[in-house]
Amino acid sequence: MDEDVHSPPEVIVLGPPDIFRTEYEKLFDDKFRILKPWQSPLPLQQFLQTHAQKTRAAVCGGSFKYLGSEILDHLPSLGVVVSSAVGLDHIDVQECRCRGIAVAYASTIFSPDVADLAVGLLIDVLRRITAANRFVKSGIWQAKSIEGSYPLATKLSHKRVGIVGLGSIGQEVAKRLEAFDCKISYQSRNMKSSVSYPFYSDARELAAKSDILILCCALNDQTYHLITKDVLEALGNQGVIINVARGAIIDQKELVRFLQGGRIAGAGLDVLENEPHVPPEILELDNVVLSPHFAVYTEESFRDSYELIVGNLDAFFSNQPLLSPFLMQ
Amino acid sequence: MDEDVHSPPEVIVLGPPDIFRTEYEKLFDDKFRILKPWQSPLPLQQFLQTHAQKTRAAVCGGSFKYLGSEILDHLPSLGVVVSSAVGLDHIDVQECRCRGIAVAYASTIFSPDVADLAVGLLIDVLRRITAANRFVKSGIWQAKSIEGSYPLATKLSHKRVGIVGLGSIGQEVAKRLEAFDCKISYQSRNMKSSVSYPFYSDARELAAKSDILILCCALNDQTYHLITKDVLEALGNQGVIINVARGAIIDQKELVRFLQGGRIAGAGLDVLENEPHVPPEILELDNVVLSPHFAVYTEESFRDSYELIVGNLDAFFSNQPLLSPFLMQ
Repeated sequence: MDEDVHSPPEVIVLGPPDIFRTEYEKLFDDKFRILKPWQSPLPLQQFLQTHAQKTRAAVCGGSFKYLGSEILDHLPSLGVVVSSAVGLDHIDVQECRCRGIAVAYASTIFSPDVADLAVGLLIDVLRRITAANRFVKSGIWQAKSIEGSYPLATKLSHKRVGIVGLGSIGQEVAKRLEAFDCKISYQSRNMKSSVSYPFYSDARELAAKSDILILCCALNDQTYHLITKDVLEALGNQGVIINVARGAIIDQKELVRFLQGGRIAGAGLDVLENEPHVPPEILELDNVVLSPHFAVYTEESFRDSYELIVGNLDAFFSNQPLLSPFLMQ
Repeated sequence: MDEDVHSPPEVIVLGPPDIFRTEYEKLFDDKFRILKPWQSPLPLQQFLQTHAQKTRAAVCGGSFKYLGSEILDHLPSLGVVVSSAVGLDHIDVQECRCRGIAVAYASTIFSPDVADLAVGLLIDVLRRITAANRFVKSGIWQAKSIEGSYPLATKLSHKRVGIVGLGSIGQEVAKRLEAFDCKISYQSRNMKSSVSYPFYSDARELAAKSDILILCCALNDQTYHLITKDVLEALGNQGVIINVARGAIIDQKELVRFLQGGRIAGAGLDVLENEPHVPPEILELDNVVLSPHFAVYTEESFRDSYELIVGNLDAFFSNQPLLSPFLMQ
């Protein structure tokens, strides 16, 4: 390594993470020599060949299409990938392992924000808050009063909540909904010894025992289209589904059919398959509350994210253990 | 009393409670001889003089303007008022006491639903869910993607929450928000020995120590316009206020000024002063989420309300203790 110890270390940013579109970009620029392929007219691979042959660290945003061999081949000096995201479905972690590239990720820093949004979407769907706000702001309340003109909502307390994926986010959701006197159960690959909630290995079985399904799992080969037609049927026409994980965990064509047909009662979706495309069939449905994959878009989480990315890069460049390793070098 | 034991007992309904606009009306009609002044062309007082001189029980809805001497004078046989509401600001309880009329009310049956809505409105305001739903459904997400076009939201976890009125609803709110790792404190007439949250006797002092104010108190002479300009100033321009109690607890003209000027960060209001009139100045504000005084409008709460009203009436007519007395006879 012939890196000049007096110049700031070089970091290639792929994606880029949304934090690079905020005031934090300047703070990154102050600490590192940041390579920004999105500002270059060169195609990415050519940019990497031209500018990044000695670059040892990459920051990768969740919106980056796929960091696999095709890209890694053009980053021969890479020693670490710091992902700004929790889900690593956009990074070929196995390939990084083979090449001896360490991977750091957002770990649990976003879990409270994602869990808060899951609960917020759930209350919004059950209690029809978004529709109510429009009802009031459009002047209908004032004109007609509420009598007879507003459908009754659904109570949250004491509902049976099935959590798909009881990792850090799932556990934060469970903790919150216990305080609403909900009955929690969960599905995951393995039973967790640290909790006493009823466990189901099968998503269909969990759905059959739940009024509400909340998806909190990672997207991978096992969870792709985990929520099938059969699972939705088991959830039933009084059931509600909340997704703060990844769109492709649900077979979205089936979900749209179930929502259109009133075969489930509602959905709160922060993520979609093929986002930002929104299936036109659900645009008019008041029992579907949508948000733009923004579960971590809070001032506080952006600050925490900045600090964790910088901390991981500082650790890497000073040969210290990564702060939030997903994969050790 | 010359009541015929074989005919169903007579009940005058004032208001009427919203439950009388649902399928429960028929169930009431099956059990009691319900007098419905709103279906008569007679003015109310004349209706009472004509039909209700021997009526011993009244059910009173929260929307009934005021049940005081002027009405009670025309109900000489009245022995009980069963209010469908929690707040009794629309009933002259002192006058009922003087006349030996018992008063039953909704007690705590609505507390979980009201607390759930308070938390839902709070997450909605902080995390901008209603605005986000419109952003997605109007096609802006699809057209522009989220980058740079969506303001960052505010994290809920670890915020300082001040609860005004730590009765049944306030305690349910506190229980829920503790699970979000919020720091709870409260203001009320008296310190509660049953909780260890910090207590403030003064609303301004509570606001100064809080990021979020949640109003859960009854409306009475002490709480009318409790939330003054000074309290809002103490809450500050990062502060958020949630009202699931009664509109007149806030000096609404001041609140509107503070919201317009960005001198507080947002509001979630299920109730307004002079509802259903909505101040036009707040209609366009995305940081204000409004709902039509519907905190108890769930299928489950309507069922519970029906059962409690019937239970109180049955108890009264069979000389048993009321199920949820506010004032004994």
